[in-house]
Amino acid sequence: MQSDNPTAAILVIGDEILSGRTREGNAHHLAGVLSATGFDLREIRVVADDQDQIVAAIRAFDKSLGGAYDLLFTSGGIGPTHDDITADAVGAAHGAIVEVNEEARAMLQARYDRIGVEMNENRLRMARVPVGATLIDNAVSAAPGFSIGNTHVMAGVPEVFRAMVAWLIPQLPGGRPTQSDSVEVRRGESEVAEDLKAVALEFPDLSLGSYPFQNEHGWGTNLVVRGLDGARVAEAMATLRERLDL
Amino acid sequence: MQSDNPTAAILVIGDEILSGRTREGNAHHLAGVLSATGFDLREIRVVADDQDQIVAAIRAFDKSLGGAYDLLFTSGGIGPTHDDITADAVGAAHGAIVEVNEEARAMLQARYDRIGVEMNENRLRMARVPVGATLIDNAVSAAPGFSIGNTHVMAGVPEVFRAMVAWLIPQLPGGRPTQSDSVEVRRGESEVAEDLKAVALEFPDLSLGSYPFQNEHGWGTNLVVRGLDGARVAEAMATLRERLDL
Repeated sequence: MQSDNPTAAILVIGDEILSGRTREGNAHHLAGVLSATGFDLREIRVVADDQDQIVAAIRAFDKSLGGAYDLLFTSGGIGPTHDDITADAVGAAHGAIVEVNEEARAMLQARYDRIGVEMNENRLRMARVPVGATLIDNAVSAAPGFSIGNTHVMAGVPEVFRAMVAWLIPQLPGGRPTQSDSVEVRRGESEVAEDLKAVALEFPDLSLGSYPFQNEHGWGTNLVVRGLDGARVAEAMATLRERLDL
Repeated sequence: MQSDNPTAAILVIGDEILSGRTREGNAHHLAGVLSATGFDLREIRVVADDQDQIVAAIRAFDKSLGGAYDLLFTSGGIGPTHDDITADAVGAAHGAIVEVNEEARAMLQARYDRIGVEMNENRLRMARVPVGATLIDNAVSAAPGFSIGNTHVMAGVPEVFRAMVAWLIPQLPGGRPTQSDSVEVRRGESEVAEDLKAVALEFPDLSLGSYPFQNEHGWGTNLVVRGLDGARVAEAMATLRERLDL
């Protein structure tokens, strides 16, 4: 699909994904939001709670550090426990000291005052961010995410991740949203492959995909056309329907 | 977690994951299987149907090509349509010509004879594999996966992926399965962080993690201990329970 939309990557941080304990869903959520708001997601990477892996991925992705993509979003590793090392790793990648941010401390303190718990050393860890970072609001549990360079650091807890995405994305300069149309056929992929390829060649600015499925009525295939120009998407879908006698 | 188990990476290939259309589940399934059979999954990467991205990832991961991990498993892009480019990309990464494999053709032909459809050019695409590869059985729909170097190439359709994993994994020399134990506490992460850290320092051979959750009764935290030695895991969990008065 041709696009001059900003490019993006997602870095998911957490042993619990790699051990098979947790099925990751944050990347899927953000992928849908990025498509709808005009960002071109190029890669998702999942790494362990391991500083070297996190730093290497940030450097590979963040354009401000010579990486491949315009924007990098991270999920996970910013809680209060010993295995939450994302803030330090992001600081190391960006060459920034990590220390308690007074604005973040105030956000946490206001919440703790409200719910009647004491600030402690572990809770204060959640106010540590790289110097020079700006904060990402957390409407759920106060402990903020942060942005530094082109890296946007968010929590792994799904409710908090979604709240941070909802706050952050409208502030980023996006491009043209992806338009898509799809049709379900009761045929195997190999029966529609030739027509699909012909239409893909006729519409090189669009992305045409086929996704086989299985349900109680048997096998079938979903045919999906995606692109930035809704009229072109509609034209390609009409051409495809005509070729397939739909 | 200390381990001399074989290391592994998973490469998921498909525009439909990056566009947000499809929520990926194959990597989660395989992650659980790898934990249980003694492989140490270090990284998951999701890339587009893009030859350069696929080739770069294979070279970064496959030890036989100078990559970082002992084993690489891929998911997606081996169907009959124009956007199924995984076989060609794997061939390019491994410096192998890709052509119709007679054993694979026979597998497909046997199935088509049984279900009464004709072989055609698109279906025959699914028999194309790099020269020198060995086949991975597909008990669901016949079109095989394949292994070359340390790269194991499987289908993206979940039912087929699972069948291929079930056939392949028992043939690979694994290590010691991961043992784990967990306990749920009705406390926030920041209340248990100090005790968790102390136990983590006492058991440096194990991995201790905390995972906050939210349900109808409020917030809580799951505490998880993982390691290769079941007795050590039990010992660490007992120590943790004692510290937390559980």
